[in-house]
Amino acid sequence: REEVKMTDNAVFSQNKVLTIDTMNPNVKNVEYAVRGPIVQRAVQIEKELREGMKKPFTEVIKANIGDAHAMGQQPITFFRQVLALCSYPELLKDNMFPEDAKSRARRILQACGGSSLGAYSASQGIDCVRQDVARYIERRDGGVPCDPDNVYLTSGASDGIVTMLKLLVCGEGASKTGVMISIPQYPLYSAALAELGAVQVNYYLNEEKCWSMDLSELERSLAEARKHCNPKVLCIINPGNPTGQVQSRQCIEDVIRFAAKEHLFLMADEVYQDNVYAEGCQFHSFKKVLFELGPQYSNTVELVSFHSTSKCYMGECGFRGGYMEVINMDPEVKAQLIKLVSVRLCPAVPGQALMDMVVNSPQPGEPSYTTFMKERTATLSLLAEKAKLTEEMLNTVPGITCNPVQGAMYSFPNISLPQKAIKEAKALGQAPDMFYCMKMLEETGICLVPGSGFGQKDGTYHFRMTILPPTDKLKLLLAKVKEFHQKFTRQYS
Amino acid sequence: REEVKMTDNAVFSQNKVLTIDTMNPNVKNVEYAVRGPIVQRAVQIEKELREGMKKPFTEVIKANIGDAHAMGQQPITFFRQVLALCSYPELLKDNMFPEDAKSRARRILQACGGSSLGAYSASQGIDCVRQDVARYIERRDGGVPCDPDNVYLTSGASDGIVTMLKLLVCGEGASKTGVMISIPQYPLYSAALAELGAVQVNYYLNEEKCWSMDLSELERSLAEARKHCNPKVLCIINPGNPTGQVQSRQCIEDVIRFAAKEHLFLMADEVYQDNVYAEGCQFHSFKKVLFELGPQYSNTVELVSFHSTSKCYMGECGFRGGYMEVINMDPEVKAQLIKLVSVRLCPAVPGQALMDMVVNSPQPGEPSYTTFMKERTATLSLLAEKAKLTEEMLNTVPGITCNPVQGAMYSFPNISLPQKAIKEAKALGQAPDMFYCMKMLEETGICLVPGSGFGQKDGTYHFRMTILPPTDKLKLLLAKVKEFHQKFTRQYS
Repeated sequence: REEVKMTDNAVFSQNKVLTIDTMNPNVKNVEYAVRGPIVQRAVQIEKELREGMKKPFTEVIKANIGDAHAMGQQPITFFRQVLALCSYPELLKDNMFPEDAKSRARRILQACGGSSLGAYSASQGIDCVRQDVARYIERRDGGVPCDPDNVYLTSGASDGIVTMLKLLVCGEGASKTGVMISIPQYPLYSAALAELGAVQVNYYLNEEKCWSMDLSELERSLAEARKHCNPKVLCIINPGNPTGQVQSRQCIEDVIRFAAKEHLFLMADEVYQDNVYAEGCQFHSFKKVLFELGPQYSNTVELVSFHSTSKCYMGECGFRGGYMEVINMDPEVKAQLIKLVSVRLCPAVPGQALMDMVVNSPQPGEPSYTTFMKERTATLSLLAEKAKLTEEMLNTVPGITCNPVQGAMYSFPNISLPQKAIKEAKALGQAPDMFYCMKMLEETGICLVPGSGFGQKDGTYHFRMTILPPTDKLKLLLAKVKEFHQKFTRQYS
Repeated sequence: REEVKMTDNAVFSQNKVLTIDTMNPNVKNVEYAVRGPIVQRAVQIEKELREGMKKPFTEVIKANIGDAHAMGQQPITFFRQVLALCSYPELLKDNMFPEDAKSRARRILQACGGSSLGAYSASQGIDCVRQDVARYIERRDGGVPCDPDNVYLTSGASDGIVTMLKLLVCGEGASKTGVMISIPQYPLYSAALAELGAVQVNYYLNEEKCWSMDLSELERSLAEARKHCNPKVLCIINPGNPTGQVQSRQCIEDVIRFAAKEHLFLMADEVYQDNVYAEGCQFHSFKKVLFELGPQYSNTVELVSFHSTSKCYMGECGFRGGYMEVINMDPEVKAQLIKLVSVRLCPAVPGQALMDMVVNSPQPGEPSYTTFMKERTATLSLLAEKAKLTEEMLNTVPGITCNPVQGAMYSFPNISLPQKAIKEAKALGQAPDMFYCMKMLEETGICLVPGSGFGQKDGTYHFRMTILPPTDKLKLLLAKVKEFHQKFTRQYS
């Protein structure tokens, strides 16, 4: 009996199979500031407030993430009507819905297996949705043709970006794939690269020139990277996240010529394509500019562009809808891409349906057109107002300098931090702007993301804040930021 | 000018950046038979039929994938009512919906940012949904406690499985992680392992004993694997896919003891937990059995269990809903897991809402209860009938031997193929059962998946067919399979 017992005990290892030491080290290297420690603390503080803990504020204002509906933005009525009809087709018998919503729902359901959103779709996405995406792209780009076979529906843009990087990244040591990303960047990129074990190649945006891209900086970055890896991808976010700039047509042309010359695969993250606010700014798709450069370019440069249901005037983040269009992709690689996406079966079908409505919205003469346009315009105008307001108010604060929010949903102001604060932060092992944002959260309830989570030039400090809170709350937030910054500066001077 | 032109031409490389030779070789190694070449051909044939091409059949019957709604299964009314209400909350004002559907929709919306399905949820999933999942697990497992903090909502079970494997897989050469999977397996596993570059360690299910797991086979497989890699994960699918077996309580106990003794992390794919048809069979969750083995086991063995909205009586594949529960996971690893899932922001929120309804379905006394139970029972009884029908009819075919479909949604019969057919297939570079299934598709319009796509003992041949087609169509399909098999056998004898 004793022996049995001993054997039995011997069975149970004291060590777990999966520990921080035995787990995949690439996952350990992943960082994602937009939902990082500061946001976790914000959630905790909200709980403390609910439990009655006394704080110098009564609510947490989250300006950390581009989550429009959470900030009170209303969904587009037509979109939601169609989704309700698709979810519960009994409603098609009802008279409460406009005819165009009904016919759209019927069209989507007809394209679904068993006429149900509950059937798997083709892995590349529902055929008729991809066709609608293709027509949308053609209209947007003034007639440049788009083949629906080049369109892949995705679970938000993130999914598409990760999928493309998965195809592209390989090699070890000096032949490991390098991926050029802008700094500051949206941390999905650095996270995906860490997970895949790729080499992150930084190129810096020019803060002095409103976060524009400099050709010389691209050249410097590439030359340096070539010493230790095999750079083959160049990622661009336009309009910019977290920096809110809108790239000029000239700049896009320069980037495409650079990619062609240097044999780089282009990834254009264009999820904010409707979010352009500044006068004189305009969205130019990489694809359109590529085709305007002529067949030498349009027949050779490999490009993928991403879009999403989460941003623009829709803000439907929770549905995880999106698409990507690939241009000049090798047909053998396309077959591999289709195989790869088929393993995960399909993007969520409600998100595909929503993507369809975004690319094929109500047209003049249709019953839902007026309401749709009113809602769309109201949302975009309000965002434009808030972009302006944010820039102006931040620039009144001594020690904060803020570029115009030309597009997207974020301001990324430069903050001067006193040496004493920098020292104290470093003593705590924190990035100075993390120290600053954490203090702001504790003292004011405002949740921002420190610039260090996106990357920035050494010795500069920033934070990212969304322009999404309702105007009143945004004003309050900006006033509190001002007050906090002044107090913080005094305290550490 | 000549020089400029030359420079300009030099810019354009003849080679693409991304080719089959430069792409990620791990992705090239991925295979996914459920949507592989045979299904692509089926889609083509459907198109040819639509275009009027003459065939020896008038429609393609797809029995390749567990896609219930595509095969005509109706969604649960209550689920779809709540989804419609959540999508378009204006409907809450209407009197056409039962009160319990409305209150459920209100509860879900309250838990969403800005009361909208369009807001991001917490990356781990909506709090109240995770709480409902935890209570469901507790009821299912006779009171074994479940902490909502151990529950992670996912985009279908596939997403959870891949995420867990991502955490677990690391190392190179002889220390590379080995993952034990059953053969036959569901090819998501082999695909994910190929993508991650892990070592696939096969253990064979015992076809003679109704696809049960043998301890001695697990031991053989592990001992062999230890010679060349570091096996640390054991995956089980119960009820089985593609094999349809339901594991006995004793078998599960043996597996858990084996995992404890051999220091293996357990992954239990339990997405078919409501799909149990055979008399005397019952679903036992790995977690419940683990806790019944006592604290020595329940405090040490690391287990993750997966569930989904796609199977059981719901069949809501298109919504990509799911959850996983982790047991005895190291707290530091849990933090890493939360970080990892936060990069992709959140699973689609409509799928989360649907998961909530699955784990918290209408209760006796509530207005939707009777209809819900009627629909649920009808679907499950019909599946049980079709499971029996499939087994019986296949076993009348000389040369086809079929285990009982005890659970899940598939039959995986053994087929004898004449030597001449095997030879001809091999000459074509095809697996013999791929050759067989492809011929069946061309001649009868029936789309099955060859056993080689799931793995099988050398020299044996199988196909997987779902039991999902409507009864009439299923009978027709089975009659055609019989006729084809006889003809094929004659032709190659």
